[in-house]
Amino acid sequence: MSDSSPVAEDSALFAEDLAEAADLDRSDPLAWARELFWAGAAEPPYLDGNSLGRLPKRSVRRLLQVVEEEWGRGLVRSWNRWMDLPTKVGDRLGEVLLGAGPGQVVVADSTSVNLYKLAAAALDSLPGRAVVVTDRANFPTDRYLLAGLTANRRLNLRLVEFDEVMGPTPEAVSTAVGEDTALVLLSHVDYRSGALVDMAGISTVVRDAGALALWDLSHSVGAVPVSLDDSRADLAAGCTYKYVNAGPGSPAFLYVSRHLQGRLRQPIWGWMGKQDPFAMEQPYTPREGIGSFLSGTPPILGLTLVEEGVELLAELGIERVRSKSLALTSHLIGLADRRLAPLGFQLATPRDAGRRGSQVTLRHPRARELCARLDGSGEVILDFRPPDRVRLGCAAPTTSFTDLARAVASLAGAAVELTSKDAG
Amino acid sequence: MSDSSPVAEDSALFAEDLAEAADLDRSDPLAWARELFWAGAAEPPYLDGNSLGRLPKRSVRRLLQVVEEEWGRGLVRSWNRWMDLPTKVGDRLGEVLLGAGPGQVVVADSTSVNLYKLAAAALDSLPGRAVVVTDRANFPTDRYLLAGLTANRRLNLRLVEFDEVMGPTPEAVSTAVGEDTALVLLSHVDYRSGALVDMAGISTVVRDAGALALWDLSHSVGAVPVSLDDSRADLAAGCTYKYVNAGPGSPAFLYVSRHLQGRLRQPIWGWMGKQDPFAMEQPYTPREGIGSFLSGTPPILGLTLVEEGVELLAELGIERVRSKSLALTSHLIGLADRRLAPLGFQLATPRDAGRRGSQVTLRHPRARELCARLDGSGEVILDFRPPDRVRLGCAAPTTSFTDLARAVASLAGAAVELTSKDAG
Repeated sequence: MSDSSPVAEDSALFAEDLAEAADLDRSDPLAWARELFWAGAAEPPYLDGNSLGRLPKRSVRRLLQVVEEEWGRGLVRSWNRWMDLPTKVGDRLGEVLLGAGPGQVVVADSTSVNLYKLAAAALDSLPGRAVVVTDRANFPTDRYLLAGLTANRRLNLRLVEFDEVMGPTPEAVSTAVGEDTALVLLSHVDYRSGALVDMAGISTVVRDAGALALWDLSHSVGAVPVSLDDSRADLAAGCTYKYVNAGPGSPAFLYVSRHLQGRLRQPIWGWMGKQDPFAMEQPYTPREGIGSFLSGTPPILGLTLVEEGVELLAELGIERVRSKSLALTSHLIGLADRRLAPLGFQLATPRDAGRRGSQVTLRHPRARELCARLDGSGEVILDFRPPDRVRLGCAAPTTSFTDLARAVASLAGAAVELTSKDAG
Repeated sequence: MSDSSPVAEDSALFAEDLAEAADLDRSDPLAWARELFWAGAAEPPYLDGNSLGRLPKRSVRRLLQVVEEEWGRGLVRSWNRWMDLPTKVGDRLGEVLLGAGPGQVVVADSTSVNLYKLAAAALDSLPGRAVVVTDRANFPTDRYLLAGLTANRRLNLRLVEFDEVMGPTPEAVSTAVGEDTALVLLSHVDYRSGALVDMAGISTVVRDAGALALWDLSHSVGAVPVSLDDSRADLAAGCTYKYVNAGPGSPAFLYVSRHLQGRLRQPIWGWMGKQDPFAMEQPYTPREGIGSFLSGTPPILGLTLVEEGVELLAELGIERVRSKSLALTSHLIGLADRRLAPLGFQLATPRDAGRRGSQVTLRHPRARELCARLDGSGEVILDFRPPDRVRLGCAAPTTSFTDLARAVASLAGAAVELTSKDAG
């Protein structure tokens, strides 16, 4: 709470930034999409869609329909419709967001369970190879799962250091894989820096080494067009509660490239992965195709929300979403250069738009205090990642340029206040 | 479609049964509970709550609140409330329905995934023992999971034949376990016959052999009081979409007895099972206690419905639910003896109330045709299980004695019609 000149100066700059943002919002061809989502009055800018996407209005309507009509009225008879949802919604997700032809994607379980199934199946298919490779900075659950799997099977986990901002490259991966390598698990978009990596280039390097490539798409699906088939990716999994807007803890998906489906067998043999699940007296024979990667009873409400989230993005078009996302992150980087770099913030996201996901990460030595302050005031919702990162998620359908200007002003204001408090 | 005397005679008997049922409904102390559930007008009797429980009205209200207020408005900030739901709802489920003290139950994942985690953890804790025992007639997903786990670890799966109606007994189990046995997986209530088995007796036999007992509670939780702690059960899992009324594919639960929690380690190491999940740079160290059995991000909407289903049963009282359930199944067995046995139906459920779950199973050589006929007419909703079983689920809060009289009349009518069609 200070009347010192930096704040007054900030106010003028902020007014300038806001005016510029308002212009950009007026010419934004995707601005109308915000109306498709539930929003409260006088809400602060929400720059954490990379953690939890907003609530689509259509999802509330459809959820009520499924609950009251299909469950409440239809009761057990609705299983006739529900039974195929994991593969049906998987096919649609594959078509709209993953560049995956039909019969290669299912929606079920959590990302952790799906990564476990895929990694275990991959390792069991290559018993002569003793090494699993991942990024030392990979999303923790990915590393933990591999730690568990490799410990249990007495294999070696090789944690590779890649460039902190740019992430893994084909060249860097090629020096880390060899004849000993069974599996390489990497994130398509890095959760810390937001770097988008070269999936096709890395998948080729991994394949040439005779290993399998498993991709975590949690931070790209719904924000970045993914081309699993064209990239010749082997395996993939990801969550749907970020850019697919399917709600907290919504079911995840997994992808197994068609050429591997006969060869790979996942370890959790539940009835939904079996041929003819209701012919109960027979021994377990896996279903043909991707259905063999299912285990338990499918979560119908969650699947409904994934379906709605995918249809909403189909309506917007993933290419249009990507264009706006890049316009947002580029604009935000420009604002950060002008307003935040002088206050000690450092960009930790690739400047090259082609190497960028849908977030901008800034580092600041006092990021923890800054975020605590903004969390307390409630003027902007963003995400702190220890030790020193602020993540600004730019979910294109629900983020405006004005949101970005307000967020930058809040960060600048908080940084100035922290400094003047120290001086005072 | 016949005017022959058997049908006319049936009509008179049916009127008698209906009058008797109406009396029983009038004096039913739990009759009011039906009002707590969503129901359409002129609905047929629903005797398949053992497959999918009905929709509680409170669940719709609460679901909307969580979706609109907590997700829509609260956004990522709501994780402060959501993060503990798997253990919080687990504790409450344990207290209200499982006879389990706090810190031993979590709600997450599917029954299949939970059984897998528990069985894998048990097998890894007893490496010197090479045999896993289950019931040859156990619910298929239980057998399949064990088949997968034992194949992967080169262990032996021993499938034991127990009495078809009465299921496993301590005596029969004692002849099947020995020094070679690592794990025994049985169902508390048999999904085919509805037999309730002696959990305490069998758990003791298993423990005395130095093995671990894993219980599938899917067909008992919410219908039969369960006493995990008092029975000295080791491990348990089960679903919540039957008698807990949490909706299609709602999350399942698992129980690990406190004395085993330090010793057992589950194989799917996701971030939610780790100490301090957001301290992301550290290696995986499992959380203290039951939380170490979690893996991925918890399914918040599903957890909400489990919470509501448990609170509804807490309000009714599981002992009152059990009393009515026994009154229903006893009455149904009486009706079946009088009206259905003469038509070729055979009871395949224990007559001893203390050995009965919450369903009545009848066998009939033409059960498939009978059920197809009733499915087509829509006059009653029940469940066919190949080759020759009709299951009549008696979910106490939502089933009336009139439902039972109507269902028996429908079955009798269909059987008479089938016979007269053959004769005509």
